Amino acid sequence: MQLKLEHFNIKIGQHKVLLNIADAKELGVNPGDRVRIRGHESISAIVDTTDDMVPPGTLGSFFEVYEHFQDWDKPVEVVPAFRSKSASVIKKMMDKKPVVQDEIKTLVNDIVEENLSEIELSAFITSSYIHGMTDDEVEWLTKAMIESGDTIEFDTHPIMDKHSIGGVPGNKISLLVVPIIAANGLLIPKTSSRAITGAGGTADLMEVLSPVEFSSQEVKEITEKVGGALVWGGATNIAPADDKLIRVEYPLSIDPYYQMLASIMAKKGAIGADNVVMDIPVGPSTKVPTVQEGQKLARDLINLGHRLGMNVECAITYGSSPIGRKVGPSLEVREALKVLESMEGPNSLIEKSASLAGILLEMGGAAPRDRGKEVALETLRSGKALEKMKQIIEAQGGDPKITSGDIQVGQYTADILASADGYVIEFDNKWIIEIARLAGAPNDKGAGVAIHKKMGESVKKGDPILTIYAEKEFKLDTALTTAQRTNPIIVEGMLLKRIPGTYGFQ
Amino acid sequence: MQLKLEHFNIKIGQHKVLLNIADAKELGVNPGDRVRIRGHESISAIVDTTDDMVPPGTLGSFFEVYEHFQDWDKPVEVVPAFRSKSASVIKKMMDKKPVVQDEIKTLVNDIVEENLSEIELSAFITSSYIHGMTDDEVEWLTKAMIESGDTIEFDTHPIMDKHSIGGVPGNKISLLVVPIIAANGLLIPKTSSRAITGAGGTADLMEVLSPVEFSSQEVKEITEKVGGALVWGGATNIAPADDKLIRVEYPLSIDPYYQMLASIMAKKGAIGADNVVMDIPVGPSTKVPTVQEGQKLARDLINLGHRLGMNVECAITYGSSPIGRKVGPSLEVREALKVLESMEGPNSLIEKSASLAGILLEMGGAAPRDRGKEVALETLRSGKALEKMKQIIEAQGGDPKITSGDIQVGQYTADILASADGYVIEFDNKWIIEIARLAGAPNDKGAGVAIHKKMGESVKKGDPILTIYAEKEFKLDTALTTAQRTNPIIVEGMLLKRIPGTYGFQ
Repeated sequence: MQLKLEHFNIKIGQHKVLLNIADAKELGVNPGDRVRIRGHESISAIVDTTDDMVPPGTLGSFFEVYEHFQDWDKPVEVVPAFRSKSASVIKKMMDKKPVVQDEIKTLVNDIVEENLSEIELSAFITSSYIHGMTDDEVEWLTKAMIESGDTIEFDTHPIMDKHSIGGVPGNKISLLVVPIIAANGLLIPKTSSRAITGAGGTADLMEVLSPVEFSSQEVKEITEKVGGALVWGGATNIAPADDKLIRVEYPLSIDPYYQMLASIMAKKGAIGADNVVMDIPVGPSTKVPTVQEGQKLARDLINLGHRLGMNVECAITYGSSPIGRKVGPSLEVREALKVLESMEGPNSLIEKSASLAGILLEMGGAAPRDRGKEVALETLRSGKALEKMKQIIEAQGGDPKITSGDIQVGQYTADILASADGYVIEFDNKWIIEIARLAGAPNDKGAGVAIHKKMGESVKKGDPILTIYAEKEFKLDTALTTAQRTNPIIVEGMLLKRIPGTYGFQ
Repeated sequence: MQLKLEHFNIKIGQHKVLLNIADAKELGVNPGDRVRIRGHESISAIVDTTDDMVPPGTLGSFFEVYEHFQDWDKPVEVVPAFRSKSASVIKKMMDKKPVVQDEIKTLVNDIVEENLSEIELSAFITSSYIHGMTDDEVEWLTKAMIESGDTIEFDTHPIMDKHSIGGVPGNKISLLVVPIIAANGLLIPKTSSRAITGAGGTADLMEVLSPVEFSSQEVKEITEKVGGALVWGGATNIAPADDKLIRVEYPLSIDPYYQMLASIMAKKGAIGADNVVMDIPVGPSTKVPTVQEGQKLARDLINLGHRLGMNVECAITYGSSPIGRKVGPSLEVREALKVLESMEGPNSLIEKSASLAGILLEMGGAAPRDRGKEVALETLRSGKALEKMKQIIEAQGGDPKITSGDIQVGQYTADILASADGYVIEFDNKWIIEIARLAGAPNDKGAGVAIHKKMGESVKKGDPILTIYAEKEFKLDTALTTAQRTNPIIVEGMLLKRIPGTYGFQ
């Protein structure tokens, strides 16, 4: 069928065309079917139908389709296309039937090239959430994710990397681990994420100090120059399938386990990592509620690493409390820089960073067995880590002379005070993150929360427990109202609820 | 946040808005989150983000959102909205957790009102496909589907109805059953579907004789006037959730069992049916491959009917062969009219129609037990069914004087000949449907297939087995090529494949 092109200048993340229902009937296609369009080049697109948006004889083309055509006035030939191979693979997955490596590769390529509808993507995600995946399937998925994006090949090895499973507020340890490793002569091209539901990912934090958006070639150059990099993975085209999957997982509030494994390891595989340390925070509001689950995750990551030719070691860490006492980009960067400058700072931050860096130093041969943490602490103490961090900042286009004192935080602040004497007996990480977000984090870099009292610490009535920072007054108000209403930190002795004396006699 | 409205004049079947990524960050929302928009009225919409389609300060609004606003120049206030209740219900279903009636009601209303994204809809469909549903959940789903659309309340009862589970080509029996029932004084307001993957649904067939698109009020009036109606359900707003679900199920090539139950019974419940006969064709290419599965389906339909206060009887029927010998709208209508006119026609069609009509006549008290089929056959023989059919055609705006001889079929025809003497030993229903579709059915009413030889019948070499009809020559060619290549009807003695004598010696 010959149709003329009409352009809808809207990107919708899939190759989609709109057919008048009369043309669709004539072609024998229904919404969700695919057609092949033969014009300047031949592409396939997902059909939607309409009785009024385009007239018969016209093919409404969204941006992703339209950009393939140069000669927009020329009619195109439209024919029904066969069912896509990926659709059949997804159907198999729904039915929990085995799939082969080549099928997963096709599926991942179609995801990256935006050849799948949201209906198909969601069915894939939901199926793998419900059914899980075999070890083989996870390996194939990981490899397909690596191959469908950029990869970095370094001339010198080993390449080191570190990853934290999310969920703990204030987990700024990459800002210490990366310079410690690089200062000891090992290469660590660290790609990080921005916060989606958190108060600040490592990329959001590093952006306080320097640009973080680089191509994978630039990441390679920075790493070769100064030994380490701290960049946003989203700008690199490394394992690009991950972002496409997150766009489906996020609205469903799920993070399918086996896809999480594949996404993590694909990013490590794509940069050619030889040795990886995994930080697995365990606690009620993290992604890993129990130590048992943490151990299973550790085994699965190690196993998958083995299949990919990577050494993986895992650290099960304490995730019930924030790391350090600051949450929100600028506040966290200030806290981390202060440790680099003077070893001044919360024990939880220094201890955890040195432990994880220590594991990596041992894996990379830069420290003897059981001496890694000591070497890491010495690297901090000697100022070598600070020196390296400045080199990284400079290599990424930031100002290497910046100090913790230079970093501005939100000018609007409010304290939450203890309403009674006692000990902190409950500490709700999720609400700490929510308050930081309401105050403006991660978009307003200066917004966040300073935590004065953590789990088990004693307070006097009237002591500040939290300070909220915001760049905008109305955001401070919203965050403050929520903090007062939700009581994210409970002090034993606080009156939770008063039951009137007549209770039971009414 | 105050934003000005920009209109994208495109219906996308969901309430969606496009935010510049800077505004989305400032609001703290991600793609897939919802925002509440306060303008002329307050509505919620699903967020997508862009870095170039709309500038900061502007809210790109698709048709479904935009139509809510009258004063388009006035900025609107946009705030983050809470997670939708339906999203939580879908998450529960993914986790196979129990849900309550009220949650299913909310979900179905959101489906009908286009408040869910395709991602959410697909997760719901995929979850219920994989996990199934409890009897309670199916009942609640059915009731919610009834309540979310139009319902018809007749003053007189009983109301009769009939439904065929799909998959058998040429299943035109409603064209006989409905007039037989109505001719015996019972009301039968039959809503039917159009073919999605078939060669012609009952609505496609009836459209050869009269209009089929009516409101539910008009269906009521037609039925009260002449006792029966044969209309397209899609035009009535009866159980409208079904069409929304099909738009997701179709591209996934699935028809989740419990949703099929709910969809069927919701349509019966919405018209106030008291007595329903279900035709369950069993055979390898139908929806129900085995008699065991047919019996389970029958039990489930009867049970669900009981919960809804409906008497349901089921007939397990032979589904391995087409009903009658014609496939495609006009061909089938001609075959059915000929039976009404003169009882001339294939035994399979007359027998099946009379059996199912007989069950309904007994259920409705219009025939004594075990005499229903006899009464049905007599109604056909006496010409009363033909008379009633003419009244229905006239009531629906068609020409009551039409005869089977008046009905035009495709002018381009081609025969498929037997290439050997023998018996028909294989008959592929799916390919018969595919050939009819390639020839133009159901959109080209005159296109289709006439079957001269069915399973078990003997043929001589050179006998015509099939005749293909088309309205357009190029469609005949496509259908013919496919028919010759696929051999949908296998005659024992046909040379399937010749193995050359040198095989094995190369």
